[in-house]
Amino acid sequence: MPAHSKRAPIVEAGLELLHRDGFAATGVAAIAAAGGAPKGSFYNHFPSKDAFGVAVLDRYFGDVEDALSGTVGNTARPPVERIRAYFALLRELGEHDAHARGCLIGNLSAEASPASQAIRDRLGELYAGWTSAIAAAVADGQADGTIRADITATTLAALLVDAWQGALLRAKVARDAASLDAYLGVLLPALLAPVPG
Amino acid sequence: MPAHSKRAPIVEAGLELLHRDGFAATGVAAIAAAGGAPKGSFYNHFPSKDAFGVAVLDRYFGDVEDALSGTVGNTARPPVERIRAYFALLRELGEHDAHARGCLIGNLSAEASPASQAIRDRLGELYAGWTSAIAAAVADGQADGTIRADITATTLAALLVDAWQGALLRAKVARDAASLDAYLGVLLPALLAPVPG
Repeated sequence: MPAHSKRAPIVEAGLELLHRDGFAATGVAAIAAAGGAPKGSFYNHFPSKDAFGVAVLDRYFGDVEDALSGTVGNTARPPVERIRAYFALLRELGEHDAHARGCLIGNLSAEASPASQAIRDRLGELYAGWTSAIAAAVADGQADGTIRADITATTLAALLVDAWQGALLRAKVARDAASLDAYLGVLLPALLAPVPG
Repeated sequence: MPAHSKRAPIVEAGLELLHRDGFAATGVAAIAAAGGAPKGSFYNHFPSKDAFGVAVLDRYFGDVEDALSGTVGNTARPPVERIRAYFALLRELGEHDAHARGCLIGNLSAEASPASQAIRDRLGELYAGWTSAIAAAVADGQADGTIRADITATTLAALLVDAWQGALLRAKVARDAASLDAYLGVLLPALLAPVPG
């Protein structure tokens, strides 16, 4: 069996480990073994652990894009509802483990980005793509007057993403959704509300 | 020299290592050595690495409280200015390393809280204390009409803390203060603004 055939299962299994335990806490032997490869074979599949981290982030971002396309991308609905539906979906998805894992993008931003230029660069690209998808809905709301138009759509979208990441950190610690509910019920509408004048 | 005399220098030096490299990536031998103790002596000073993590968080929170008392605690100034001055101070403090380290509380929320009940419990207590200090200024602003009063001071303060943590994650990745400036210039005033009616 050629080495590359094991790459996808290692990424898939490694995503679970990294999301649950973190980047530094997960060893390359355990990652290879979780993917059904010999423990010593990790570097047959990835040139470095950082390269593996980038591959896992890309795999994870596929799930982010799926969630975005079914919510923010549903242009038949009003823009603010599309944005709200996206974050409400993330909140629901986190219920199964009481929000213990949080978001892999936020987790690796906190943990792995200082030591790895490759991971930091890819995180920057993923933040930009994520922000851009939400900014499209913000721009639609600015055009129809339901979202404030005095701040750029990209800035508002980036603030939505960043504030969500912070709310997830507290949800991880508290093991409950109170911070996410406050985000959905208070922060999101306050940030997007049209300004008088 | 009794073992306890080395505890404070180990915490002090270990704080630097944990803040820079993370919890899992920092070994107990390196922590002891950084504090000037024999490499093998870590467990003479701390019953567990988790207990050390809690001690480091408590030491770090002393700095948080110092920053709070000089800003949020300065009741001679208008409430919104006190809150804004606090986060502006944090932004300035992060400039020296281009925001690469971020906040230890956020970092350990992302990384160490899933595996350690002791760290997670202490993080919950620190979030509560941090939120409470800011909520006092929010309540002052609600009393004088400069901050919306339809949402509890604690909820607004928690959202301010959480959104800040998220902005710090992006600042770590981008190595610049754009997300922090958007927080200060857009999110903070939007969240606190009095609501009509």
